[in-house]
Amino acid sequence: MVRNLVYAVSRLPAGGHHAVCRSRQGGMTLADKFTLSEIYQKGEPGLRAAGYARTLPPDAASGTPLAANRAYLDSLFFTPRFLSAVKADCSSAILGTPVKVPVFCGPMGGWSNLGDTALVETCRGLKAAGAMMTLGIGGSDDVQKAVDTGVPVAKIVKPYRNTDLIFQKLEDAERRGCVAVGMDIDHFLGRLVGDTVDLDDTFAPQSEETMRQAIAHTKLPFIIKGVLGVDDARKAVDLGASAVVVSNHGKASLESATPAVVALPEVVGAVGHQVEVYVDTGFRTGSDIVKAFAMGAKAVGFANSILIAWGAGREEGVRQFVELLGAEMRRTMSALGCADCASLVDVKLQRIVT
Amino acid sequence: MVRNLVYAVSRLPAGGHHAVCRSRQGGMTLADKFTLSEIYQKGEPGLRAAGYARTLPPDAASGTPLAANRAYLDSLFFTPRFLSAVKADCSSAILGTPVKVPVFCGPMGGWSNLGDTALVETCRGLKAAGAMMTLGIGGSDDVQKAVDTGVPVAKIVKPYRNTDLIFQKLEDAERRGCVAVGMDIDHFLGRLVGDTVDLDDTFAPQSEETMRQAIAHTKLPFIIKGVLGVDDARKAVDLGASAVVVSNHGKASLESATPAVVALPEVVGAVGHQVEVYVDTGFRTGSDIVKAFAMGAKAVGFANSILIAWGAGREEGVRQFVELLGAEMRRTMSALGCADCASLVDVKLQRIVT
Amino acid sequence: MVRNLVYAVSRLPAGGHHAVCRSRQGGMTLADKFTLSEIYQKGEPGLRAAGYARTLPPDAASGTPLAANRAYLDSLFFTPRFLSAVKADCSSAILGTPVKVPVFCGPMGGWSNLGDTALVETCRGLKAAGAMMTLGIGGSDDVQKAVDTGVPVAKIVKPYRNTDLIFQKLEDAERRGCVAVGMDIDHFLGRLVGDTVDLDDTFAPQSEETMRQAIAHTKLPFIIKGVLGVDDARKAVDLGASAVVVSNHGKASLESATPAVVALPEVVGAVGHQVEVYVDTGFRTGSDIVKAFAMGAKAVGFANSILIAWGAGREEGVRQFVELLGAEMRRTMSALGCADCASLVDVKLQRIVT
Amino acid sequence: MVRNLVYAVSRLPAGGHHAVCRSRQGGMTLADKFTLSEIYQKGEPGLRAAGYARTLPPDAASGTPLAANRAYLDSLFFTPRFLSAVKADCSSAILGTPVKVPVFCGPMGGWSNLGDTALVETCRGLKAAGAMMTLGIGGSDDVQKAVDTGVPVAKIVKPYRNTDLIFQKLEDAERRGCVAVGMDIDHFLGRLVGDTVDLDDTFAPQSEETMRQAIAHTKLPFIIKGVLGVDDARKAVDLGASAVVVSNHGKASLESATPAVVALPEVVGAVGHQVEVYVDTGFRTGSDIVKAFAMGAKAVGFANSILIAWGAGREEGVRQFVELLGAEMRRTMSALGCADCASLVDVKLQRIVT
Repeated sequence: MVRNLVYAVSRLPAGGHHAVCRSRQGGMTLADKFTLSEIYQKGEPGLRAAGYARTLPPDAASGTPLAANRAYLDSLFFTPRFLSAVKADCSSAILGTPVKVPVFCGPMGGWSNLGDTALVETCRGLKAAGAMMTLGIGGSDDVQKAVDTGVPVAKIVKPYRNTDLIFQKLEDAERRGCVAVGMDIDHFLGRLVGDTVDLDDTFAPQSEETMRQAIAHTKLPFIIKGVLGVDDARKAVDLGASAVVVSNHGKASLESATPAVVALPEVVGAVGHQVEVYVDTGFRTGSDIVKAFAMGAKAVGFANSILIAWGAGREEGVRQFVELLGAEMRRTMSALGCADCASLVDVKLQRIVT
Repeated sequence: MVRNLVYAVSRLPAGGHHAVCRSRQGGMTLADKFTLSEIYQKGEPGLRAAGYARTLPPDAASGTPLAANRAYLDSLFFTPRFLSAVKADCSSAILGTPVKVPVFCGPMGGWSNLGDTALVETCRGLKAAGAMMTLGIGGSDDVQKAVDTGVPVAKIVKPYRNTDLIFQKLEDAERRGCVAVGMDIDHFLGRLVGDTVDLDDTFAPQSEETMRQAIAHTKLPFIIKGVLGVDDARKAVDLGASAVVVSNHGKASLESATPAVVALPEVVGAVGHQVEVYVDTGFRTGSDIVKAFAMGAKAVGFANSILIAWGAGREEGVRQFVELLGAEMRRTMSALGCADCASLVDVKLQRIVT
Repeated sequence: MVRNLVYAVSRLPAGGHHAVCRSRQGGMTLADKFTLSEIYQKGEPGLRAAGYARTLPPDAASGTPLAANRAYLDSLFFTPRFLSAVKADCSSAILGTPVKVPVFCGPMGGWSNLGDTALVETCRGLKAAGAMMTLGIGGSDDVQKAVDTGVPVAKIVKPYRNTDLIFQKLEDAERRGCVAVGMDIDHFLGRLVGDTVDLDDTFAPQSEETMRQAIAHTKLPFIIKGVLGVDDARKAVDLGASAVVVSNHGKASLESATPAVVALPEVVGAVGHQVEVYVDTGFRTGSDIVKAFAMGAKAVGFANSILIAWGAGREEGVRQFVELLGAEMRRTMSALGCADCASLVDVKLQRIVT
Repeated sequence: MVRNLVYAVSRLPAGGHHAVCRSRQGGMTLADKFTLSEIYQKGEPGLRAAGYARTLPPDAASGTPLAANRAYLDSLFFTPRFLSAVKADCSSAILGTPVKVPVFCGPMGGWSNLGDTALVETCRGLKAAGAMMTLGIGGSDDVQKAVDTGVPVAKIVKPYRNTDLIFQKLEDAERRGCVAVGMDIDHFLGRLVGDTVDLDDTFAPQSEETMRQAIAHTKLPFIIKGVLGVDDARKAVDLGASAVVVSNHGKASLESATPAVVALPEVVGAVGHQVEVYVDTGFRTGSDIVKAFAMGAKAVGFANSILIAWGAGREEGVRQFVELLGAEMRRTMSALGCADCASLVDVKLQRIVT
């Protein structure tokens, strides 16, 4: 099954693969199959060609926790149990919504900068692969377009200084058929772009009362994103959240904040028995997802990686990317003797610093 | 509030920002706003153009503790509490003198090498931003010029072999209106420039008797700078000092001496209840200051960074630099749920080595 | 004895050594003697010239445990006891078969891609040096050719989805005179080539019943290769294996699996009193072998290194390579005061992370 | 006093310094004064110009403990006590022979390859600076030349397979006026040059009986060099040695042997109360010597560094090098509040891994 997804590069005539892609104006047909590393290598040029201008992490800004996060993840190892290999199924559910791969596309704005169809193509790719979409900043149009593709959509509302906007957007998301809503609390104080703080006049810290009202205001499950410690995790549960996302928000949250991978087991230990805990920040492979689940996560977010996958092959690139994540998850789970995602929490990770 | 200080580079026409600066002969108007990383990138050329010839750390000299100091600082992380975000105020006091940002410019000599106005421009920038100036080697003229700008000035006297000079300079500083005096004991044995010892014929270790007399000789609070361990910290308190600065003196103190960041919590633990403890060496950002306060510091010194800020924009560069430090401090404090500097001491730092 | 194996480079006319080799069309006479580092430097070009196209590890694929494995091995140090130096003998036995050097060539396929004689030349080199050959994927012809050289051969059968093939190949190996058989369980789920999974339609996880039958089916001792933890080790013993190989299968097993060097002492602790434990993955020198024995290994596998040695000098390159490993082993053992391989298990390794 | 030894580079006309040296055919007058880092930078070309062909460590051979040794040394920090600064005297004694700086030139052979006068120039430089000379492989002529300069000389005899040679050389050394003799036991098994073993037909492990006889054969104190652990240290004491040198013999001893800096405190703990313990391997500065003394060493050997110093300035280069080591020692000792070498053992080192 795994093999169907990949064309070993060595089986293609040298150079020909690239040439074919280019002759189709950067497009891609179903006949083109990639590996994860090929998607990572080829996607960014495609993304740039489509007009994407922001820096992709990791960047060189001093003090951001991204490098530590990735290095920490790379220092974690698991122990195969080949003689107990089982057929593995990586399907799961995110807040009750079934997913074939326990992955969501992180909430990003500015889809229209990538052309009229980028958002819809991404949603279709996610739907085909069985993952979830989340939306961040952006209007009702984006929500409608995304929902219309049939992919399950969660809308992560920004912490607007104008709290009316929050309630309007929550209502809008519910009305248009989102499966969940939420808020990224790590933008209470604006967004870091490099070391510039941006949008801090538009966003603002929300009072406990507002948060409680917002969560009560919707029938949908509410996700609090940007939790990096036990205090925020416990408060999120107390406020009525159904799930938390442990996240450094790419590099847009706070310099020198605990790396998400380090925070994850602490948050799971504190509230994992009460709410679903997800994680994002720097995850790139199916093995990475398995590590997150071993630390108690119930889903993993990919943001820049999915943009890159879209850059590599539009809808098809996104679909293949998520399916490759799933395939690698299943192979790893099989090797660990874990038949399903629930059993991954028993996998012991060993940290090796060299 | 933060946003007023910065122009996101991406909003400027490509290349235009630099061009404008250059067309003003390296000058700068109030309309030019920078981020911290822009100041760090642009300041050094400006400083060099003004004739600054010394090496800026870090340098390659073997065994200096600067690299370890910076790496240690970068390995410290804190845990945001966004759901407990508060409006933060980073104003404080240094030995009773109010500061808007708990920052002082480290004592440096040779201001006249940078032209007639560099010292005054720096002092004005510090005053505008609400920080403190300290002066090191240099004469009465420099003290007078600095005090005349209205910035609070502390004079850190050198440990002259000719002890009369020490007493004269203390008297002079007091007479001209400094708010504090002090001595950098890490120059008892001369100054390291690379691995050359310099000025060891001019400076000398001071006896306990001389130190005690010097401290008693002035009505001003006395700061002992260059403390790196518990012994010196306790002795400083016993001699009558009101504050100590934990410091590697840039790279000019002693090879393989404890990095200041490592020494800081030990010194605070020993004497933090008796005197104010400050720190310098390798600090660059507002997040760094927050870490220092979490370890018990009451102010942080910046020396080369302020020279660089001056290089980037003269008085305005210095003002913006300190205000950016303050803005980053406040944003970080808000995210940590700390309304004021005093509460930062309860922030727990987590060391992550990868 | 050591010295007979090596020509110090400095004793050769500058450049002449290389020139001579090249004038013989990449061939080599018995007069050419190399050091280990020369073999490593010169072998790869020779191997490439013979048509070898696959990547030699370490590669850049994210998450593979090879770099951690090598770094961990390099962080282990032993304490010489020169004043207790003894004459050392590194001969040993692998499953009862005597070896002059406790080394085996790891099971590799595709020998015919290197020409008609590569397999036989390698076997002859191993035989001359007193090591063991193992064969992986490949047919009866290869087994016969290898056995005919007189080198002891172990056949490591692949975990074919078609289990009949397994039994046929075990029988064939026994009939043709192999000294042992085995299976690499880390290919239950196909082979990793970079991040592509290959041959997963041909291989498959084997049931406990099949494994037990296969092991019972042959009179030869059975080696289970690809063990990386206590679970698989214990299960291997329970199934009737006579030996296990702790291995990451180069980089072809599983991303982020425990590095073999880290797993080795755990596996030895669990089953070392019941079966022989071998190790491979990233070993390069005689000192490395000594470390493996200090952790309880009874033999060490070299795969790519032996290909490289063949590239450096065909049969003679392989022979010299293994003899150099033995010579370095003996010198190290002498310095540690260990007369034989059995006593190496008392050597204490000290891990130093810098 | 320190300052007299150094000319800050910045005070010289740009480029002129180099030019002057070169115009004197690589020679040097007393007017040229260097810093340690200048000697390290400039010495190697001079050494090469004089015909020195061997690799200077660190080299790239895999597994040698030199890099770990240096990294470990660099991870050690001490805590200044400036307020307890004292005038420091770094003079000491090596086996009863007074030295102004507790440094010896490590035993090296092949002096005649550097010309007729290199050995004598080096000895004179050492004598002028108040350090000790040791000789390794080489004949009576070298011993006589060295002794005739007036420098104290210790002869470290090789562990000749022909034991008569050992006794002859011990007698010769005593007769010609050496102050001590010894043997480098880490050459029992030949010398590593890269990964080539050299001279293993000339040298051989010595029996306990031979060692005991050799030590008893001379009236001079006997130094056992190449100890890296407690076993050899205790045995050396039992055999009658007066001192041991903890050493990796540059890179010529044994791959993956405990780094000397790691072994030093263990050896001191075991036998430091019975014999003098010295150390070499990778030491470069006066601060490094202070660290060695803080770990209990009574002298530090420099080999390649002294060759480089000779390359930088012949006799004068060696003299300046050792005096700079002494000056840096004294400055560091003063800052640590240690008046003499004996008190350095109370200095606490802090290991900081970043």
